[in-house]
Amino acid sequence: MPEAGKAEYVVGVDLGGTKILSGLFNNSLECIGTAKLSTKAQRGVESVIERIDRCVRDAVDEADLSMKQVAGLGIGAPGAVDFKSGTVIFAPNMEGWKDVPLKKELEKHLGVPVFVENDANIAVLGVQVAELKSKPQDVVGIFVGTGIGGGLIVHGELYSGFNHTAGEIGHMVVDVNGPKCGCGNKGCFEAVASRTAIFQRIKAGIKDGEKTLLTEMLGDSLEDLRSGDLRKAIRRGDKFVSKVVEQAAEYIGIGVANLVNVLGPEVVVLGGGVIEALSDEMMSVITKTAKEHAMPGTIKGVEIVASKLGDSAGITGAAVLARKETK
Amino acid sequence: MPEAGKAEYVVGVDLGGTKILSGLFNNSLECIGTAKLSTKAQRGVESVIERIDRCVRDAVDEADLSMKQVAGLGIGAPGAVDFKSGTVIFAPNMEGWKDVPLKKELEKHLGVPVFVENDANIAVLGVQVAELKSKPQDVVGIFVGTGIGGGLIVHGELYSGFNHTAGEIGHMVVDVNGPKCGCGNKGCFEAVASRTAIFQRIKAGIKDGEKTLLTEMLGDSLEDLRSGDLRKAIRRGDKFVSKVVEQAAEYIGIGVANLVNVLGPEVVVLGGGVIEALSDEMMSVITKTAKEHAMPGTIKGVEIVASKLGDSAGITGAAVLARKETK
Repeated sequence: MPEAGKAEYVVGVDLGGTKILSGLFNNSLECIGTAKLSTKAQRGVESVIERIDRCVRDAVDEADLSMKQVAGLGIGAPGAVDFKSGTVIFAPNMEGWKDVPLKKELEKHLGVPVFVENDANIAVLGVQVAELKSKPQDVVGIFVGTGIGGGLIVHGELYSGFNHTAGEIGHMVVDVNGPKCGCGNKGCFEAVASRTAIFQRIKAGIKDGEKTLLTEMLGDSLEDLRSGDLRKAIRRGDKFVSKVVEQAAEYIGIGVANLVNVLGPEVVVLGGGVIEALSDEMMSVITKTAKEHAMPGTIKGVEIVASKLGDSAGITGAAVLARKETK
Repeated sequence: MPEAGKAEYVVGVDLGGTKILSGLFNNSLECIGTAKLSTKAQRGVESVIERIDRCVRDAVDEADLSMKQVAGLGIGAPGAVDFKSGTVIFAPNMEGWKDVPLKKELEKHLGVPVFVENDANIAVLGVQVAELKSKPQDVVGIFVGTGIGGGLIVHGELYSGFNHTAGEIGHMVVDVNGPKCGCGNKGCFEAVASRTAIFQRIKAGIKDGEKTLLTEMLGDSLEDLRSGDLRKAIRRGDKFVSKVVEQAAEYIGIGVANLVNVLGPEVVVLGGGVIEALSDEMMSVITKTAKEHAMPGTIKGVEIVASKLGDSAGITGAAVLARKETK
């Protein structure tokens, strides 16, 4: 049993463009308290930092503990991060987040050592340690949601490259004449395979007269459409939605093949909201397409798996980082 | 001065599908003797090994030295290589090359320690040490010839991944509906940007009635067309060839952007026959396109350069490897 008062716990935080998640983890990497707050990035950097502070204290309180029992805190931020200084260099979806000394600020607020990493990096670290038990040394994580993020484990360690941006896989061009991406280019991986791309194809199809149960479920404008609605429609026999999701899965498979060819990982792990909601529908197509497109020698023996951590990959990875750095 | 009789030299070998190059290097990594032989892969594995043996002895003899003065030998092979065992796992363009214990065989033949690596890996190692003076820690090498090969330096060391195949960038899909590739897929990087792709586009254009100086220079069937002929035609004002080469450069730029986004290198170095012949024509387009397609944060400060080592990148890298391993 840990001594009373001794700092035995760590906190993991997942800072997203829309929500902040936090979790308190014990020595066995079990999550024993969580909290969630909206980010409200439009209120500015200082306000977000205060909200992180509150979200962390909420999770600690939830587990009937105090900050004195916390040895350290890890946090994943949605952008390029300089791990050493703990600075968020830029976060494209959060207004004003340029060269923010997040480590320094949070340490001042919370009085514990803070470690900052990119969110996709931290998620793949969570999967590698908590789910894959640190066995594979070379792992690629692909997180499919509103966009597509990636994280790389190389020689058993997170890898972020020269500009701390390695794993920016969402903007790998796979279809040079394909649909326009938010970044200005055409045919980026996330322009053909993200939730945004899937929703756009469904809306365009409806305009062209395609029939789908989604309009029955949500009305003609598909208000508040979510990945889970696609699953429900497919399970009720919606052929149009099924076709669109299959096409996205094929594109994801091509992305997997590209990354296997370039990086030569042992495991490719898929996560994010789209995979979480639709892994039964997508994973077999992803794997089949990846095997068809990767060079036979490069994909031999490579595991392609869906993460079971779901939304908690981020806080788990952040806790792993905090544990590792405070040991 | 090295003592007479002391093994102060190393040999670097570049084993290709059509030719074998060897070079004898002194302590300052200067090449003081070279040799070249056709590979004649169709004669079988044993015959190729004998030809490597002969090519090595020729380079040593060329420098008026003997094998006794050679401390070790590095060799780059065109395929997946297990560096530890020195086995060529497979070499797609060389008949019968599957699980060939090249290290063991060459050591038996030549009586010196032998170190085997993938040819593109070894070329990027040569560029990194001899040209970039080992300064950048994360480097991507892109070699554009008949196909497109890649080599990765990560944390200052060669990186080959789980199946010893990392850097198989030629089969990264960039145009999913593009032209068919030799591998069976569509729109692979090498199907749109290699010498093979350029030549195919030129031949197809001529069939469609495009005018080019190349037919004057080489006859209607463009017999024995080489990359250098493209340069000559462009410099004589050939607009069609200029357009085709520019298009290939744009595709290479997109490939560079993809690799910068995914890998986050500090330097991207381009080499191979196409770049060697056409760097003046292609490099500015490659750099411009890469900057347009990579995420601004990922490409900031990244150098994109053409190697000056040309054909000797392979033997230089092999010598670097031999030097490193025998020190």
